[in-house]
This record gives sequence, C-alpha cells and structure tokens, in this order.
Amino acid sequence: IDQASIIAFAKEFDPQPFHVDPAAAAAGPYGGLIASGWHTAALVMRLLVENYLAAESSLGSAGLDELRWPHPVRPGDTLRVRATVVESRRSVSKPDRGIVKTMVEAANTDGATVMRATAIMRSASASLSASVRGFCPVGFASTIAALVARSPWLASRGGSTAMRDRSG
Amino acid sequence: IDQASIIAFAKEFDPQPFHVDPAAAAAGPYGGLIASGWHTAALVMRLLVENYLAAESSLGSAGLDELRWPHPVRPGDTLRVRATVVESRRSVSKPDRGIVKTMVEAANTDGATVMRATAIMRSASASLSASVRGFCPVGFASTIAALVARSPWLASRGGSTAMRDRSG
Repeated sequence: IDQASIIAFAKEFDPQPFHVDPAAAAAGPYGGLIASGWHTAALVMRLLVENYLAAESSLGSAGLDELRWPHPVRPGDTLRVRATVVESRRSVSKPDRGIVKTMVEAANTDGATVMRATAIMRSASASLSASVRGFCPVGFASTIAALVARSPWLASRGGSTAMRDRSG
Repeated sequence: IDQASIIAFAKEFDPQPFHVDPAAAAAGPYGGLIASGWHTAALVMRLLVENYLAAESSLGSAGLDELRWPHPVRPGDTLRVRATVVESRRSVSKPDRGIVKTMVEAANTDGATVMRATAIMRSASASLSASVRGFCPVGFASTIAALVARSPWLASRGGSTAMRDRSG
C-alpha cells in the first residue's frame, strides 16, 4: 500500500488530516500518514474475495463483530491476511443455506495486527467446503462454535491493483 | 449512489458478481446490483467526517462493534446517516483524552436501515462538545452509558463526489 493510494482513498471517503495531508500527519498524533481503517478493510476484503470466498456460493455478509484496527497501516506496508473459520452452521430459516463465521486478521510487514474482526458470511451452500476455498479440511459443522480451519497467510504487495498474489 | 460508482468501488475492492456485474446480479440472490458493504461504510464515513467528527480533536477510531448491513444498497439510493452518542468518557490511560461511542445508523430512500454499527472513537479532548460537532447539548459524561445526543439525519444524494450536503 503506497502513500498515493492512501491519500486518494481518504480524499474520497475519509478526509481527516492524518489520512490526506502528509505534513499535517507528520505533526499529528500518529507522527505520519496512516491509511483510513476503511481502506484497510477494503484491501482485506479484496484478498478474501480472491483467495477465500467461494464465488459460486457467497451471498455476501450480514456484518462483522468486534472490528478493530489495533495498529495503523502506513505507506509501504505490505498486508497479510489470515482467515479462521470459528463457526459454521446451516441457516435455520433456509436449511439449504449456510452461515460461516470467520475470524479475519490482517498484519503489516512487521507482523503487527492492523485489523481484526469476526465476519458473518452467508452461503448458498450448507457445505463449508463449498462456501470457502482451498484449505478447509472439514465438512459443515454443527452449531457448536469450533476452530475448524485456518488459512495460510495471504500476502499482498503494493497498491490495490497489485493484490493478485495468491497463496491459497 | 449510482451504478457506475458501485461497480468502480467493487472492481477495486470487492469483485463479487452481485457487486460488479449487472447481468449476473439480476439473475443472482439479490435480483440486481447491490453496493459492497464496505462502499456503504465508506460513504457513511464521509458524512460523519463532514458533519459529525470534530476535525481538531479526532484521533481516529479503535474499531466498531456489531457492524451490520441489514438491507442492501442499490443504484439510485440516497443514504441518510444518524449518529447517536451512547457513551462518552475520559481515557483511563490518558486522562486528557476522551473515548466516544457512537451508534451510527444509515437508511436508504425508503427508510430501510442499510447499515448499523457502534463506533469507538478516540478524541484528543476530554470534552464531548469538543469531540463531536453541532448538535451535542451536554458536556462530557461519566463512564455510565447514556443516550446523550442524537444528530439530525444527514443526507447525501448521488455518488461520493456529491456528498457535501449538510444538515448539521
């Protein structure tokens, strides 16, 4: 993620001084420019769409719990994302569908956590292996929360247009 | 929010068929194109920066709890945002600073809720009136959660470049 893309995103959506103005940011609370948390979230989403969600079954997300940005993202950072399935179950109202809760963690180059959240994902399939991609060794679980799968770290380098590296 | 901006955002950050491909979206689970939830969140953020956060004291957000997208955003929708302060307190570790929890609600043209979340905002000031703008009748409260202020609805029309209408 580079400074130009941080500023461009923030000018459109989150024009606070520490996101858009390098000089003000240097004198500000973070001692330099940092990315909008929404920019970080959008970059993380890109990695999940490309590496984790099954395009055939994804029905979008109902939302996220405990979204946190513990550490700022700065120009030059490379983000890595890890997805952990913490719960998977059939939909109660539509038993042919599934709900998958995924703990999403993103880290910067130094390994510091820059984002963490639990995403509630809707799937057109009641099978976990048809709902997420590549690294899920188990079938669709019961309603009991369980750590059933953990992805390898997905790496990205450069701006959002260069996020097509895949490890999964 | 128009179709072109929905597709442009999603192509960069959330390229799922129901966000980027009108034909596939029409045949898909939502019966038409819908905006990425991250696009909705970013548009809501723009309204909050322009109408709610105090530029002088905002130190960014630690995160959000219970982020939900109950209803999809479709092309042509106008978003309205309401901010409700649900808790405000001094920082324990830095008593000259404040923490403000704000319930953020966004509605579409028909009044359906398209996003809801509780944002945890950090402020350089331990005064609520210096932390948020325009419509807060009370001073900085204790640690007891209380509904102390509710903004008027902030309206936006058109794409993200046309979000400068202010009501506050």
